[in-house]
Amino acid sequence: MQIAIVLFDRFTALDAVGPYEILCRLPGAETVFVAERTGPVRTDHGSLALTADQTLAEVPSPDIVVVPGGPGQSPQMANETLLDWLRTADATSTWTTSVCTGSLLLAAAGLLEGRRATSHWLALDFLKPFGVEPTRERVVFDGKYVTAAGVSSGIDMGLALLGRIAGDERAQAVQLATEYDPQPPYEAGSPQKAPAHIVDRLRGRSRFILT
Amino acid sequence: MQIAIVLFDRFTALDAVGPYEILCRLPGAETVFVAERTGPVRTDHGSLALTADQTLAEVPSPDIVVVPGGPGQSPQMANETLLDWLRTADATSTWTTSVCTGSLLLAAAGLLEGRRATSHWLALDFLKPFGVEPTRERVVFDGKYVTAAGVSSGIDMGLALLGRIAGDERAQAVQLATEYDPQPPYEAGSPQKAPAHIVDRLRGRSRFILT
Repeated sequence: MQIAIVLFDRFTALDAVGPYEILCRLPGAETVFVAERTGPVRTDHGSLALTADQTLAEVPSPDIVVVPGGPGQSPQMANETLLDWLRTADATSTWTTSVCTGSLLLAAAGLLEGRRATSHWLALDFLKPFGVEPTRERVVFDGKYVTAAGVSSGIDMGLALLGRIAGDERAQAVQLATEYDPQPPYEAGSPQKAPAHIVDRLRGRSRFILT
Repeated sequence: MQIAIVLFDRFTALDAVGPYEILCRLPGAETVFVAERTGPVRTDHGSLALTADQTLAEVPSPDIVVVPGGPGQSPQMANETLLDWLRTADATSTWTTSVCTGSLLLAAAGLLEGRRATSHWLALDFLKPFGVEPTRERVVFDGKYVTAAGVSSGIDMGLALLGRIAGDERAQAVQLATEYDPQPPYEAGSPQKAPAHIVDRLRGRSRFILT
């Protein structure tokens, strides 16, 4: 089983590394980071680069596709090389997945039409023009398409997907090995829970990030 | 404010990227990934490399030190170049922090003697020979030393530390931006919660990982 995690300029690090840390522990799986070109790919913040070990062309038919999001996703929505690769990979994939605004890339490739999907809470409305039903849940399964909400949700998605593939026991062992027993110091992780003025402030800033 | 995240061969990716994703959002902070040599540094699983942009020698006095763990930490406990750098950096740091078995590196450098600290649940006992009081909590503050439990706990540590430095409102905004509203699909993230036979199985395997 081959897992391809897609990188592009200004992706969000945890979008990619959350699912990686879980899914690389799937028995018998080979994980590969792919991008248009091999070599270091910088995150949105710029102070970290992850290495793409293979080009998109070198990995045409992974079993699992993982697409992260991030501010760099906007120009990628018009990158026909990437969108074509997504369509080709999806034609033979067992699971096609995304974290955060990565679902906008799947949508732009036409893969989510008529389906339920989620995204970063600030980006949910951007799914609609692609015929996708925005769904305010942390992890959404619709057939072989699995989309996760913002940034950190890729960990939950990874565990849920690992459970479907390898069974609950294996997923529980991975959860224990990664000590995923979250204790956030605040109740502020969703727009429903965070103080209203903080939600409003982020909503105001998002125009610059997402459009 | 300069944040140095230390990389070494066979570190665990999420140990480093969890706190990175949170702390890089600290206003005015510069984050830098450091290692003995610049260039790609491979994770424990081998299928991912993060780039070290500066050498340890080039970053002698960061304000915040973040030390991840991972199976590769064992040989590093005898790496005097790294341990010397930790002692020097700690002499002027405002916060010295670790995730997972990174606390064993801080302990080996002599920085945690007489203090309370945590680590991956499988590694807690290894702190004792260094005069450290093993503490079964997800994030432990003892003076300027902040240690986090296994792998995923670095996200909680990052948020707690960001709150101490920049205030609760800023930390809540970062929690909302990263949509950290965890919904693990299982209750298996700690040895207290996971099924006993899974705990026992991981305990059996840990001899090969940690010693």
